[in-house]
Amino acid sequence: MNIQEQLQHKIDFKTKPLGSLGMLETIALQIGTIQQTLSPTIAEPTILTFAADHGLADEGISPYPKDVTWQMVMNFVAGGAAINVFCKNNLVRLRVVDAGVDYQFPANCGVINAKIAFGTKNMRREPAMTTAQCTKALERGAALVQAEATTGCNTIGFGEMGIGNTSASALLMHAFTGIPIADCTGRGAGLPDKQVQRKAEILKEIAAKYTPGSPIEILATFGGFEMAMMSGAMLEAKKQGMLILIDGFIATAALLAAIAMQPTVRENCIFCHTSNEKGHKLMLNYLLAEPVLNLGLRLGEGTGAALAIPLLRSACDFVNQMASFEQAGVANKA
Amino acid sequence: MNIQEQLQHKIDFKTKPLGSLGMLETIALQIGTIQQTLSPTIAEPTILTFAADHGLADEGISPYPKDVTWQMVMNFVAGGAAINVFCKNNLVRLRVVDAGVDYQFPANCGVINAKIAFGTKNMRREPAMTTAQCTKALERGAALVQAEATTGCNTIGFGEMGIGNTSASALLMHAFTGIPIADCTGRGAGLPDKQVQRKAEILKEIAAKYTPGSPIEILATFGGFEMAMMSGAMLEAKKQGMLILIDGFIATAALLAAIAMQPTVRENCIFCHTSNEKGHKLMLNYLLAEPVLNLGLRLGEGTGAALAIPLLRSACDFVNQMASFEQAGVANKA
Repeated sequence: MNIQEQLQHKIDFKTKPLGSLGMLETIALQIGTIQQTLSPTIAEPTILTFAADHGLADEGISPYPKDVTWQMVMNFVAGGAAINVFCKNNLVRLRVVDAGVDYQFPANCGVINAKIAFGTKNMRREPAMTTAQCTKALERGAALVQAEATTGCNTIGFGEMGIGNTSASALLMHAFTGIPIADCTGRGAGLPDKQVQRKAEILKEIAAKYTPGSPIEILATFGGFEMAMMSGAMLEAKKQGMLILIDGFIATAALLAAIAMQPTVRENCIFCHTSNEKGHKLMLNYLLAEPVLNLGLRLGEGTGAALAIPLLRSACDFVNQMASFEQAGVANKA
Repeated sequence: MNIQEQLQHKIDFKTKPLGSLGMLETIALQIGTIQQTLSPTIAEPTILTFAADHGLADEGISPYPKDVTWQMVMNFVAGGAAINVFCKNNLVRLRVVDAGVDYQFPANCGVINAKIAFGTKNMRREPAMTTAQCTKALERGAALVQAEATTGCNTIGFGEMGIGNTSASALLMHAFTGIPIADCTGRGAGLPDKQVQRKAEILKEIAAKYTPGSPIEILATFGGFEMAMMSGAMLEAKKQGMLILIDGFIATAALLAAIAMQPTVRENCIFCHTSNEKGHKLMLNYLLAEPVLNLGLRLGEGTGAALAIPLLRSACDFVNQMASFEQAGVANKA
C-alpha cells in the first residue's frame, strides 16, 4: 500500500462511522499525502499578506481612496486589523510584505520591504507592469517562502491588501478562464450596483485592449504586484512540499496564474473559503475546488485562511490522536 | 440606542469594508445581544455529551451492535474519541453523561451518572418511556446545566451517543414538523439503501401507532433519554442566558422538542453545522437556521459544536480586538 492507501486505512479504523468526519477526512488525506506521512501536521503555519497599489484605482473603481492601502499596512503592523486578530488567536504567524505600495514606509516599522515599484501603472493606458517587474515579483515571492521554509513552516497562506485589486483579479480571471468580464466583476470593498456596472465596462475595455500570450505576460499586463508576488510564492511553496492555503478572490486569481505556469501547484492547495465577492464561486467551480468555509466573508488580508486553520489542525489531530476500534475495544460494524 | 444597535455601530466602524466579515458579524451581534454587552465572550465553553440506549435497536435499525453505546462511552472517558480530540485541542470542557445506557458503568470511571433507566423500551411495542421518566430526564438535564453555570460557563453545546438514536430523532422530527417520515429517515451510522427503506417502514408503522398530544408526551413516546435530557438542558441554558450550541441531527431533534415547550429557546442557539444525515437540512430549513459549518460531518458526540467554537471565538475577538477606522487612522469610505 502507498501512503495514501495506508492513511485511508488508518482513518477508516478510527472509532467513528466510516466517512463520518466528511471533509476533515479528505483534508487529512491530502495533507498526509503531501507530507508523505501517516501523521500529518500543521507546523509553524504562516500567513504572508502582500500589499500593493494599483494605477487603475485612479479610475474610481473602488469606494475607498488609494491611501487606504498604506494606512491598512500600518494598521497591520500595529496589530489592529482583522488578520492580526485571527492570526494571533489561532496561533498563526503573520508577515506583512510591501510588494508595491505607493508609500514610503518608515524603516524598521515591521513591514517586509519587497517593493517592486510605487504601485502599478494605470492599465487603461498601459500594461500594469513590465514582464521584468513581473519576473522580479515572482522571484521575491519565492524567496520569501524559502525563508519561511527554513523555520520549519509546512503550511503557508497568502493574503493581500490593495485598493483596486478586485479589478485586476477580475481581469486575470477573465484571461485565464475565459469567463465573461461581467461575471468576473463584483462589488469589491462595497461598490453600489451602478458603479459595479461602470467598473465592468472599464474592465471590458481594458481586456479588449491587450493580447498578452504567456502566463507571465497576462500577469504583467493585468495583475498587481501583490498577486504576482503571491503567484511566485505559491509556486515555491509547491516546490517546498508545503500546504498552500488559498484565501479569497484575489488569492485565487493569483493561483490561476501560478497554475498556468505549473499545474501541479493545485495539488497542495486547500481552498479555505468561498468569498462573497461575485466571481469567486465561479473561480472555485472552474478549479473544481470545495472550500472549507462558507461564511460570506469578503475582507481579504488572508482572513479566510487564518480562520480555516483550526479546522485543518483538527483534521490532523483526529488522525494522530483518536483511538482505533481495536485500541478502544469498540465493536466495528455488524 | 439599545445594545444591539450600539454593537452594530461598533462592528461597522472596525477597519474593514462594511459587512465584510459575513456570518461572523451576525454571530457577534447575536452573542452580544444574548449577553447584553458590547464585548461578547465565549467563557468556559462546555460540551455535555449524553449517552443512552434505545429499545428500538432490537429491530436492527443500525449497522452497529447496541454494545457500541457503552463501549463508546468508555472510549470518551479514556479520551480516544473524536469529541475528546476536538474538545482538548480547542480548549473546550467535555462532560460525559449516562442518561440511560444499558450498562452498569464502574463507579468513578469519569461518567456522570444521570441514568433514568437501562435504555428505553422498544417503541414498536410500547412508548419509549413514561412521561414521568421524560420529566425526570428534562429535570436532570436542567440540573446539569445549572451546575455548569455556577463555574462561569456562558456557552454550552450538546452532543450524544446512542445506537438507534437517528430513528428516535426521525420520529421526533416527523411529530414536531409534520415532514413525511421518508424525508426524516437517513443512513444513521451508515445503513445501506435497502435497510434505510426498511428503517423508514418501521418508523412509519410506529408513527401511526401513537397519538401523543403535548410536547412532553411526544418526547416520551418517540424520544430517547439522551434527547429528553438534552431538551431539558437547552431550556435551562436559555433561562441562564447561555449561548446554546446545536450540533447535528439528534441535537436539533431535541431542540424541536425544547422549542415546542418554550419557543424563545431558539434565540440563544447557534446552529454549528449541517449534518450529512438526510433529514438535518430539512430540520434546519424548518427552523430558518443558517449553520456555521458545512463539512459533511455525521458523527454526533457534539463534534460539530466543538469544531465551530474557534469561529465563535473569532467572532467575539474581532469585536473586542480590532481597531476602528478612527483609532487606526484609516480613511473610511469615500
